Amino acid sequence: MSLVRVHNFSVSLDGFGAGEGQRLDAPFGHAGSRLMDWAVDTRTFREMGIPGTSEASFGVDDALASRWGAGIGAEIMGRNKFGPQRGPWEDGEWKGWWGDDPVFHTPVVVLTHHPRPALELEGGTTFHFVDADPASALRQARALAGDLDVRIGGGVSTVRQFLEADLIDHLHVVLVPIVLGRGERLWDGLEGLEERFDIEATPSPSGVLHLVFTRRAAP
Amino acid sequence: MSLVRVHNFSVSLDGFGAGEGQRLDAPFGHAGSRLMDWAVDTRTFREMGIPGTSEASFGVDDALASRWGAGIGAEIMGRNKFGPQRGPWEDGEWKGWWGDDPVFHTPVVVLTHHPRPALELEGGTTFHFVDADPASALRQARALAGDLDVRIGGGVSTVRQFLEADLIDHLHVVLVPIVLGRGERLWDGLEGLEERFDIEATPSPSGVLHLVFTRRAAP
Repeated sequence: MSLVRVHNFSVSLDGFGAGEGQRLDAPFGHAGSRLMDWAVDTRTFREMGIPGTSEASFGVDDALASRWGAGIGAEIMGRNKFGPQRGPWEDGEWKGWWGDDPVFHTPVVVLTHHPRPALELEGGTTFHFVDADPASALRQARALAGDLDVRIGGGVSTVRQFLEADLIDHLHVVLVPIVLGRGERLWDGLEGLEERFDIEATPSPSGVLHLVFTRRAAP
Repeated sequence: MSLVRVHNFSVSLDGFGAGEGQRLDAPFGHAGSRLMDWAVDTRTFREMGIPGTSEASFGVDDALASRWGAGIGAEIMGRNKFGPQRGPWEDGEWKGWWGDDPVFHTPVVVLTHHPRPALELEGGTTFHFVDADPASALRQARALAGDLDVRIGGGVSTVRQFLEADLIDHLHVVLVPIVLGRGERLWDGLEGLEERFDIEATPSPSGVLHLVFTRRAAP
């Protein structure tokens, strides 16, 4: 069976995966760029076309960041990751944050209470808009992914819902040592999560900590 | 000026320093021993008389744990760390969790809204019960400590209040990779805390992560 994976998911020390006040010009709200600063100077993110502030690194941040694409046949994302619109779709021109040739190059299932026709873009990315619970969204994504793995791409509540439903095999969390104070919490409702996973922690010279959760085999 | 230090302060991934339902037979509430399991097998905690489950370790957990006592001239603790009683003192026989010869061997300032006479025990530990805000409690503790440092011993709300008041120079947090879900949160109200500290992270083979916060020099 293919795996369900989460990669490069940053949280603050107080457990927030996004700040308060998310909007078009501030996708992480008052957190600004702080949750993703560790990533923008990796070779992996540079190759996605994301501008960095210094020479691209090949260290442990990049090694872990680079795992996001290999072997992935489809992504599932929440509607808030796709764009800032809420409620019925009004801006039919919006194609996501990623332009005409998105970085995914696979089918992407967008969870929304407002289904609409699929949106096929360049480079193999097609957005499918579905109104489904995590388990049935995963069935649809697996059908689109063939034998490959499915990535849960976020945002915070989407990852949390898939963890609650015990559908995630591999979870890469990047703990950023900042206290955000407000925003969207990843860990709420996940008491005892550690019992289902082996957890490996690795610090990076950039100051973040990589936590890799691997689901334990059923006893 | 002497330093104000916090040592061996465990929090869960979701930021709880104690679980829900703290009482005499469960000082950390539903967290049980999980927040302190990393510590009981260190030589440092073994020497405090705390029973462990295997051979005492001399590794990084012990190295960091062992820093708690050196150079400390007084401790400040919240009343809930001293004991499970709330409101006016009814059990005059209670001498804290630590018996007739407590591990502190220094004056200890216990924050309480119900002052009472000092309690002098064996080995140099004297509990002083004072009703004071963090800054004035610290003045009293410094007077008792001479030239030595002052340790903020917990519990959660006491550490949080001293951090809010920007009175802490050195903070050793042990991040335990468990999701507690409920209890007392350390980080609440501390948005932006990282701006005041340099933070160093070190993982331990025991599975916990040591975070050492060192207050930045004033600009």
